[in-house]
Amino acid sequence: MEGAHPLILKKIVETNEMKTEGYGIDRFSEQAREKIRIACQAPHAEVHFLCGGTQTNSIVIGALLRPCQGVIAALSGHINVHEAGAIEAGGHKILAIPHRDGKIDADQIQKTVNSYQHDLNREHMVMPGMVYLSQPTEYGTLYSLKELQEISAVCRENNIPLYLDGARLAYALACPENDVSLCDIARLCDIFYIGATKCGALLGEAVVIPREGLIPHFFSIIKQRGALLAKGRLLGIQFQELFTDDLYMKIGKPAIQAAKRIREALKQQGYTLFTESPTNQVFCVMSDREQKELNRKVTFGYWEKFDDTHTVIRFATSWATREEDVEELINILKAL
Amino acid sequence: MEGAHPLILKKIVETNEMKTEGYGIDRFSEQAREKIRIACQAPHAEVHFLCGGTQTNSIVIGALLRPCQGVIAALSGHINVHEAGAIEAGGHKILAIPHRDGKIDADQIQKTVNSYQHDLNREHMVMPGMVYLSQPTEYGTLYSLKELQEISAVCRENNIPLYLDGARLAYALACPENDVSLCDIARLCDIFYIGATKCGALLGEAVVIPREGLIPHFFSIIKQRGALLAKGRLLGIQFQELFTDDLYMKIGKPAIQAAKRIREALKQQGYTLFTESPTNQVFCVMSDREQKELNRKVTFGYWEKFDDTHTVIRFATSWATREEDVEELINILKAL
Amino acid sequence: MEGAHPLILKKIVETNEMKTEGYGIDRFSEQAREKIRIACQAPHAEVHFLCGGTQTNSIVIGALLRPCQGVIAALSGHINVHEAGAIEAGGHKILAIPHRDGKIDADQIQKTVNSYQHDLNREHMVMPGMVYLSQPTEYGTLYSLKELQEISAVCRENNIPLYLDGARLAYALACPENDVSLCDIARLCDIFYIGATKCGALLGEAVVIPREGLIPHFFSIIKQRGALLAKGRLLGIQFQELFTDDLYMKIGKPAIQAAKRIREALKQQGYTLFTESPTNQVFCVMSDREQKELNRKVTFGYWEKFDDTHTVIRFATSWATREEDVEELINILKAL
Amino acid sequence: MEGAHPLILKKIVETNEMKTEGYGIDRFSEQAREKIRIACQAPHAEVHFLCGGTQTNSIVIGALLRPCQGVIAALSGHINVHEAGAIEAGGHKILAIPHRDGKIDADQIQKTVNSYQHDLNREHMVMPGMVYLSQPTEYGTLYSLKELQEISAVCRENNIPLYLDGARLAYALACPENDVSLCDIARLCDIFYIGATKCGALLGEAVVIPREGLIPHFFSIIKQRGALLAKGRLLGIQFQELFTDDLYMKIGKPAIQAAKRIREALKQQGYTLFTESPTNQVFCVMSDREQKELNRKVTFGYWEKFDDTHTVIRFATSWATREEDVEELINILKAL
Repeated sequence: MEGAHPLILKKIVETNEMKTEGYGIDRFSEQAREKIRIACQAPHAEVHFLCGGTQTNSIVIGALLRPCQGVIAALSGHINVHEAGAIEAGGHKILAIPHRDGKIDADQIQKTVNSYQHDLNREHMVMPGMVYLSQPTEYGTLYSLKELQEISAVCRENNIPLYLDGARLAYALACPENDVSLCDIARLCDIFYIGATKCGALLGEAVVIPREGLIPHFFSIIKQRGALLAKGRLLGIQFQELFTDDLYMKIGKPAIQAAKRIREALKQQGYTLFTESPTNQVFCVMSDREQKELNRKVTFGYWEKFDDTHTVIRFATSWATREEDVEELINILKAL
Repeated sequence: MEGAHPLILKKIVETNEMKTEGYGIDRFSEQAREKIRIACQAPHAEVHFLCGGTQTNSIVIGALLRPCQGVIAALSGHINVHEAGAIEAGGHKILAIPHRDGKIDADQIQKTVNSYQHDLNREHMVMPGMVYLSQPTEYGTLYSLKELQEISAVCRENNIPLYLDGARLAYALACPENDVSLCDIARLCDIFYIGATKCGALLGEAVVIPREGLIPHFFSIIKQRGALLAKGRLLGIQFQELFTDDLYMKIGKPAIQAAKRIREALKQQGYTLFTESPTNQVFCVMSDREQKELNRKVTFGYWEKFDDTHTVIRFATSWATREEDVEELINILKAL
Repeated sequence: MEGAHPLILKKIVETNEMKTEGYGIDRFSEQAREKIRIACQAPHAEVHFLCGGTQTNSIVIGALLRPCQGVIAALSGHINVHEAGAIEAGGHKILAIPHRDGKIDADQIQKTVNSYQHDLNREHMVMPGMVYLSQPTEYGTLYSLKELQEISAVCRENNIPLYLDGARLAYALACPENDVSLCDIARLCDIFYIGATKCGALLGEAVVIPREGLIPHFFSIIKQRGALLAKGRLLGIQFQELFTDDLYMKIGKPAIQAAKRIREALKQQGYTLFTESPTNQVFCVMSDREQKELNRKVTFGYWEKFDDTHTVIRFATSWATREEDVEELINILKAL
Repeated sequence: MEGAHPLILKKIVETNEMKTEGYGIDRFSEQAREKIRIACQAPHAEVHFLCGGTQTNSIVIGALLRPCQGVIAALSGHINVHEAGAIEAGGHKILAIPHRDGKIDADQIQKTVNSYQHDLNREHMVMPGMVYLSQPTEYGTLYSLKELQEISAVCRENNIPLYLDGARLAYALACPENDVSLCDIARLCDIFYIGATKCGALLGEAVVIPREGLIPHFFSIIKQRGALLAKGRLLGIQFQELFTDDLYMKIGKPAIQAAKRIREALKQQGYTLFTESPTNQVFCVMSDREQKELNRKVTFGYWEKFDDTHTVIRFATSWATREEDVEELINILKAL
């Protein structure tokens, strides 16, 4: 809802008149890449800056898969629900499997692969070609290190790349319940992105390929898909700042605290939480009456119908959420 | 498993030395089109001849949908399972919904449309743009006239084209339980195809658009998708014969009788039928031991795993199935 | 090479903490749309904000064309040369025709259409489905009002949409030789974009559809193609500023003057200009020796090989080019 | 214009009632594959049977190229002119280069590659990813062995696969002027197809990959693209016959002789041949008056406009052309 984190905006202003090369090979972008490599302990990682989540997902998935391959993902995965069919528009089926609070597990992935491999008609079917996870998930839940290790092991045994969508990764990293570090992700995934659009930047996602060479000609593919910014420095400058003084690791903290307070208040008021997520998203079941009344005072997200008379609504806190806003929301909820 | 129906083959041989124009505008193709229009009571119908089911489905669906639109289909639909991702390769998501014995109903379709229309995030989602049915379904079951009327009504209310995949349509038409005629299909659907590859021809499917103009430039789209035969007459000749003396209406009869006898024999032997289908496909649950033994004497289709020790197998009879073959199979089953 | 125009940056800073809705339906974006409508005298125009030229071209062209249709463009058109095959990746052929200094004319367009329509094999060919122009062209030249009127007339007679790529439009509008106003473009084209990335913004292009409804579901298509910014306001804020106090009309002036001085200096030094363009791009033929020497002191653009020992290089001035930079360049050129 | 060669038709009839597996893994298809491997002296070759030229070209090219790669071809190449944009619909640009009588040469290919590699903006451009040739060409001309060796050498030096479209290959092989054998093609190309649709079969093209493994999952890709015939045997039976007793090597002979006689008669009558082709296609320039008159008695192909009052027309002879037909045509031409 706001613009950029003040430190990021400051940097954009400070560097505004400096001259650089275009298309993301400027010194700011190079510095940002190096800082990300250090934060990931992945010294040979390729880092590419893109503009948004759907763009990143469709380019990465489209570039990784061969024709006839599909991507294993949770039914609730962002790519399966809220990207207007971007993955299919790129030619690939989403092999959607059931989730538990937004998560899938190693066992399900192995079963999906087995089911394909043992099917005598498999050459008439879509081959599982990669796995898509979100951290945190679309329901705000987190994969534990153990879960991620198991998934990574299954993927490597089956020679299937693992891709992690980190649109809101800062909120996972800021979460006390989280035990998965950026280095863990870089070690366990074949490709992932560090989201900034929803974590303090004006826009920007950093695709990280820990072991370079996974996708030949990725720069040209980015250009072809219309995702190469002429002023690529805009992304570089922001990521450079996000990876200075651990800003990216800390930026989600206020959001986590705010979400926790909202969750507690909702429970206290007798509302049902739709999922028990530890991150910055709060999903709450409300009657249509309550929802309508709340809507007169507060802007919130519609998630889905719960039943004929109830709706799941979503509050997403952010790095910019202020304590007084949380107070006010809680007071409104109390008065509902 | 065999080649063509003898009458069709005879026609191919008789016409072999006649000279005609190429690309499907020859006199045989024109006559076939006219006969199909008469059989469908659709005097203005456009008729296009294609080579196979996956080709037809992907061309029709790709040509009908706008970007961002998807096709509603049963989870068990051929396009969703056994076409190697052809629809997605053409850029479109399959909005797969649960089925009952391979069928979906008008209510489910309306709910899918409602769910899209009432979702406040719908512009980030795939819009239902058409409906795909198979008659008979992949499980050999049939839509009744009432069911098809209801589905058609829902589609027209919502301004969504209805497409029917008739890969095995002759087996539906030959079935005593069936109450849906070719004219009903032409009246209730916006586009459908009459399958011949699996119904007596060497190859061939006839796409029928009862109300012409649904898909502009369809001829060029067929060419672009590599589906235009230089010797298009090969398809025309076969369809001309299939629609002479009601051959297409009668050709499935032996298959239906053979399938009925196999089903009865299986039940008598205590096997569980996976679905109760009235058409030419018989789905039977067998233990892996039985299956293995049977496999030494008979070639049959693998359908899917039933549980850890059982498999669903499929017998598909055809216009060419002989009584003695059925006898032999039944004797083998008895001896298992 | 620089960031944003100071006024734009100022606006981004001022509005940074204001809360707005996401995805481009915020008040800044709405105000920007309204200002653009007024500037174009197109009160019903649809306005959509995108991030870059290749993205805009591939989305517009992909959304406008039907399968089997292609886009008529100059061989030198940006879409044909420097977009890494983005249009073809979207499924469409570029019907490239010869150009004169980057321009094509009404007569060529009519001939291309005629040639298709009179070809008896046309259903096996790509149908001309739209026309693509750039103003200014890739060679920095300008279409005159008369030329644009003639092209528009031919397009309308043939019922083929006319699309204008205005990546550097501000430099055309600031040019004394130019007689085509924004209102002319809105009147004569069916869709066009007003470029900002290269005209003072951090990033941003405004697609204008003067007569709404040309492309159904365009919002969803933008989302599907990964081009919808979560913080769409970033684009809205910039365009709002660009269309305040005629900034967009004036912003190119310094670039035009600087380019003129460079051209004059080059001629004085005896260099050959590759084209006589009146806008902010200067194309000059240099021997490889000169080029190498110049390269030690100045960063410039490589355009193409001229012959075995010469290269065409490009200087592009901008709103941010300072007089002292021009002086310095001229001194370096003199000393070469 | 006719159906199949009598020997092929005979084989189809003889085998009609035999039962085989579907989808091209039947014994006829396997035998045909083996015979083709022997004829090509390529014992490890992969052989896949498809239905038509456009289908084959679009599947092969789409499967071989990576995103951002394009295919080098003659401006006159079938893929560039008469396939309704099939290659672009598959996502790839045709890097069309000038031809001489339908042919391109090794030097042009090397220059195209160099031009890409030396262009500093190459990452914004389409990378040459393969080469497409036709033998005979669209103008009926032939590559000599020397020309093909040179092209192959350039392709291998640059690590770019060479693909040869053999839609009318039988007419090249039957031509006295031809010095390129099937074994030469298998040795010098990375992938090619042996055309049968225009060389005696009802339909069918055999894709040959001399060194297996060039395209992983090619079977599934064929399925996905709708090109897998359920009764794949139809193709296998025909190719088995075509490669029995050297039929494919001899089948074009009558066509070559007929074409030669037509060419001589045309020259005698004072007509201008558009190209001097040695194969089964005759291209002749006729005034519009002559053309119109001829059209009342003979069906021929429209090729292209020559000038305002003349047209290039095409006569294509075939394996089925009879001497008396040639006589009659020549008499008509004399009387014109």
